[in-house]
Amino acid sequence: MKVVYLSAVIDKELPISDIFPSLKGKIDTICKKPDTDEAVSAVDLIFLALPHRVSMEAAPKFLKAKRLVIDLSADYRLHHDVYKVWYGAEHKDKANLPKAVYGLPEIYHNAIKGAELVANPGCYPTSIILAIAPLLSEMVIDADYIIADSKSGVTGAGRRPDLSLSFGEVNENLKCYKVNEHQHKPEINKILSAIAGKGIDVVFTPHLIPMNRGILSTVYLKLKKRMDTKGAVKIYQDFYDGKPFVRIYVDGKLPQVRDVVRTNFCDIGIKVTGDTAIVVSCIDNLLKGAAGQAVQNMNIIAGFEETKGLV
Amino acid sequence: MKVVYLSAVIDKELPISDIFPSLKGKIDTICKKPDTDEAVSAVDLIFLALPHRVSMEAAPKFLKAKRLVIDLSADYRLHHDVYKVWYGAEHKDKANLPKAVYGLPEIYHNAIKGAELVANPGCYPTSIILAIAPLLSEMVIDADYIIADSKSGVTGAGRRPDLSLSFGEVNENLKCYKVNEHQHKPEINKILSAIAGKGIDVVFTPHLIPMNRGILSTVYLKLKKRMDTKGAVKIYQDFYDGKPFVRIYVDGKLPQVRDVVRTNFCDIGIKVTGDTAIVVSCIDNLLKGAAGQAVQNMNIIAGFEETKGLV
Amino acid sequence: MKVVYLSAVIDKELPISDIFPSLKGKIDTICKKPDTDEAVSAVDLIFLALPHRVSMEAAPKFLKAKRLVIDLSADYRLHHDVYKVWYGAEHKDKANLPKAVYGLPEIYHNAIKGAELVANPGCYPTSIILAIAPLLSEMVIDADYIIADSKSGVTGAGRRPDLSLSFGEVNENLKCYKVNEHQHKPEINKILSAIAGKGIDVVFTPHLIPMNRGILSTVYLKLKKRMDTKGAVKIYQDFYDGKPFVRIYVDGKLPQVRDVVRTNFCDIGIKVTGDTAIVVSCIDNLLKGAAGQAVQNMNIIAGFEETKGLV
Amino acid sequence: MKVVYLSAVIDKELPISDIFPSLKGKIDTICKKPDTDEAVSAVDLIFLALPHRVSMEAAPKFLKAKRLVIDLSADYRLHHDVYKVWYGAEHKDKANLPKAVYGLPEIYHNAIKGAELVANPGCYPTSIILAIAPLLSEMVIDADYIIADSKSGVTGAGRRPDLSLSFGEVNENLKCYKVNEHQHKPEINKILSAIAGKGIDVVFTPHLIPMNRGILSTVYLKLKKRMDTKGAVKIYQDFYDGKPFVRIYVDGKLPQVRDVVRTNFCDIGIKVTGDTAIVVSCIDNLLKGAAGQAVQNMNIIAGFEETKGLV
Repeated sequence: MKVVYLSAVIDKELPISDIFPSLKGKIDTICKKPDTDEAVSAVDLIFLALPHRVSMEAAPKFLKAKRLVIDLSADYRLHHDVYKVWYGAEHKDKANLPKAVYGLPEIYHNAIKGAELVANPGCYPTSIILAIAPLLSEMVIDADYIIADSKSGVTGAGRRPDLSLSFGEVNENLKCYKVNEHQHKPEINKILSAIAGKGIDVVFTPHLIPMNRGILSTVYLKLKKRMDTKGAVKIYQDFYDGKPFVRIYVDGKLPQVRDVVRTNFCDIGIKVTGDTAIVVSCIDNLLKGAAGQAVQNMNIIAGFEETKGLV
Repeated sequence: MKVVYLSAVIDKELPISDIFPSLKGKIDTICKKPDTDEAVSAVDLIFLALPHRVSMEAAPKFLKAKRLVIDLSADYRLHHDVYKVWYGAEHKDKANLPKAVYGLPEIYHNAIKGAELVANPGCYPTSIILAIAPLLSEMVIDADYIIADSKSGVTGAGRRPDLSLSFGEVNENLKCYKVNEHQHKPEINKILSAIAGKGIDVVFTPHLIPMNRGILSTVYLKLKKRMDTKGAVKIYQDFYDGKPFVRIYVDGKLPQVRDVVRTNFCDIGIKVTGDTAIVVSCIDNLLKGAAGQAVQNMNIIAGFEETKGLV
Repeated sequence: MKVVYLSAVIDKELPISDIFPSLKGKIDTICKKPDTDEAVSAVDLIFLALPHRVSMEAAPKFLKAKRLVIDLSADYRLHHDVYKVWYGAEHKDKANLPKAVYGLPEIYHNAIKGAELVANPGCYPTSIILAIAPLLSEMVIDADYIIADSKSGVTGAGRRPDLSLSFGEVNENLKCYKVNEHQHKPEINKILSAIAGKGIDVVFTPHLIPMNRGILSTVYLKLKKRMDTKGAVKIYQDFYDGKPFVRIYVDGKLPQVRDVVRTNFCDIGIKVTGDTAIVVSCIDNLLKGAAGQAVQNMNIIAGFEETKGLV
Repeated sequence: MKVVYLSAVIDKELPISDIFPSLKGKIDTICKKPDTDEAVSAVDLIFLALPHRVSMEAAPKFLKAKRLVIDLSADYRLHHDVYKVWYGAEHKDKANLPKAVYGLPEIYHNAIKGAELVANPGCYPTSIILAIAPLLSEMVIDADYIIADSKSGVTGAGRRPDLSLSFGEVNENLKCYKVNEHQHKPEINKILSAIAGKGIDVVFTPHLIPMNRGILSTVYLKLKKRMDTKGAVKIYQDFYDGKPFVRIYVDGKLPQVRDVVRTNFCDIGIKVTGDTAIVVSCIDNLLKGAAGQAVQNMNIIAGFEETKGLV
């Protein structure tokens, strides 16, 4: 396995280590200006980390040439009708859209295995779906009243000049944003609905936290069936048995962001109180929430060890 | 009005501005070692900012001498039975406990006016009760399923050596703690129950955020009666009409921590989505959540302008 | 004294408290689109907080109409030849430039008193000049080898979208920038040269610190005359005797940023070790380093108490 | 190579991953209570990360049994006379002290190779010595006036409850401390004196920065010989030629902390201005400044690839 092609929208071609000096002497691959044809001939598998709307223009060329595609944008995550509502544009690659497999390996491992096109999940959906799936699939919660209160570090919003992401605005501040209107909501609803076998509509509030990396989602689930923390934890342990990147906390212990930062783990803790299960999940938004999960998907597609290159 | 007595557990008496150099040249009052008798003779009104359990030993001496007491500890906030459960100690001043008025002026202004002893609220309860009271008193929400997801800066935990509060542990981290077991929970339940006229038991999850000051509480209320954001906002505007330190946001706008830091305001925004009202409140935990509210209570007791000395 | 005119480059006119909600209910003055004629007729004194190059186009209109001008840009701080070199543009108001008084009240109080036009100092120069002036004017240091190693919070760079100021780039990072090439260097050199009566060229390294507010400058001065810390402190105490906004630390104690944040103070500590005097000064870059000093200058010009409105 | 023994002063033995949950599933080795005899029989090489004064009691037992020792404390870095002055205690292992090799591989690679006992350098000395050594050994600077202005993240002070390291004190603050009195100063002076062949006494000011990891040292060197940036850079490139963990920046570019965090690199940039060379070096204080360098030393002693296990 080798990185044979690397490109970005830049003014002139230069080693990636000139952009990120921490890589100096370790990865000095030249970062080129984008040239899809060149890329198609160079690669067996491509990671597309393009903006929404742009990805669906590039992907078809790779797919046509039988290259495997792992797409980190939202372009292949939703039905085109839903996509249009949330991303404000007609879908331009309806032909390939049905082929896309949602790249959440803990749920769709088998489908990913044979996929040509993987839609790598969003960071919030990864943290929220993994926190809810076990109890939901057991049908022991009120599927009509699911609350996901998520807190994310700043890198979740990407790396770009933006006053609202500037240090002076974010530091010593805390806010929620796009309350129940975040573009990751339909993605969460879609997957949870598939698991439940009925339409699910979560209440989803994202918050911006003054830290670089990490998402902690606090999920409130109303239990239809009496159980204690131990019983709930057992359901999670069974559900994620054999999954290398999910760690379940026992005895009501709950994960912190620092437990997962710079790893590909999703750590989950559960605490039952009365008829409420409080489920807390943590991921690193740049790894399990993006690039790490993409590598995990590559490993599955390519038949590598699922944990290869990941910690 | 004048600060005539100032004390702390210190090794030797020195100007308060030696401890907090930012005060140099502005407030150089000598900070003494604690001497209750001296304090009793010196003051008309005392702010007790003592640890829980210690306050209830000091307060009676001031009350006996007809000094007004504003107590910032939890010692006079709960019935002694509940106190014992949550603070692990028998209450030592059951005589004065019934006299204590809960110092949340937006709810108990009249009672505070004539009080001898004010139990200044905790920071989380201030932010949560003010967010819930209007819809709860209108009886339009399901009082049996109230979720309060609160996020606090670090100063909420006090100023003391503690590994879990050290920079290296808090920075670039995020965690919840004492999930549904925080000692502020009975205080929230007590006041909300009084407002509702029935027993209320909130689900309360506090989170520790890497910032110095501020609390943002995201409260999820299930509406029993259909209403839109505008209708909900109207209920809050009416409820807090004439209250100088509550600002209601309109049109679904929601406050951020920076809007209230270094002020005594509690800012509240409401967004209705389906049958859920998401209410977001922000305070500065050191002001409206502690010292600022104590001054507000003093102003009310003493017949000063309620906003005197506060911004 | 009253704020009668307030403008900014904005899309539509709205209360300043809509832009900064923390001001809601306190300052709801309408923020207008800029109209110099309207401003000229409305005000007696104007604070110009415009970008460099823009200020020198606006100021003449106010001066012509006999309005007092306090300019927070760099446009009136340097001789036009030096200005051209450092700001890359021909000066457009050479007529008024000689009238400008450098608004560092601890040095130029008398001149400011009668000024029509005050060039409010930069934040770095304020912290550095005040740290050096006493020993320099006593002629006891080697004026040819002055090192100023300054550390600034992020707001020193202004409030604007800029990748290099984004949270993800600044947080958990530390860097120097524009090493010995910062545009504040000629301003420092000019004032120090005037004090010394000879040409001074400091070595000046600014650093960007992951915090919102504050500058700490560590200045290294080589003593030509033997003295101890006490003797050096005495020189500072004498030099700043009667100056309300400079606080000198004694016994080798040194100030921290937190001692001055949200105040207009410049705190200075001195420690002599061998033949080196290490001088540490702290200011809040937004107050003593900008707006606070501007108000201080207004107070002096207008004959108000120098500390009016400042803490 | 295998971790066979792991101990700490703890209440009960438990997996290291219970203390640092991020290690769960990766390193679950039991962390034992300290037992030197057990350790001696278990290991070939030991890393002692003990407090100063404690290390010199443990080390002799390992040395006697012919175990290799890499000591991360200061106990074997200084002559016992100097040690007594700076660490306030008589040295208890004068017998082994002369055997200790200072573990800065870029300077003492050959001596480390055959060492039984390595004194792993302090974090500040690593960053400062590497920044000065090339120009100093070329004899082109004034060795009598070296200024090192260092800025460190908080983890440099260790992991312990301490009010001055608490989030509320460090965040939004900046201070210098132990100015020219830091216990790392004699270590810097000792090594630089050895390089220069004459007594060196640096002026050293450490600063505490609100970030977790990283040290940036800004060093001011007065040139005795005219040279430009390019010439100075060449001296550094030659000096560190073949050293895998030093990266020299060219063209006056200077490193930032983010370039080295979570790596074992020391990045160095040089800018000459007039007769001053400003040298900026960055390290991660927990890696090149401590544990990483210890591993590097192990690799050298054990004959492994110098970069093994390090990035």
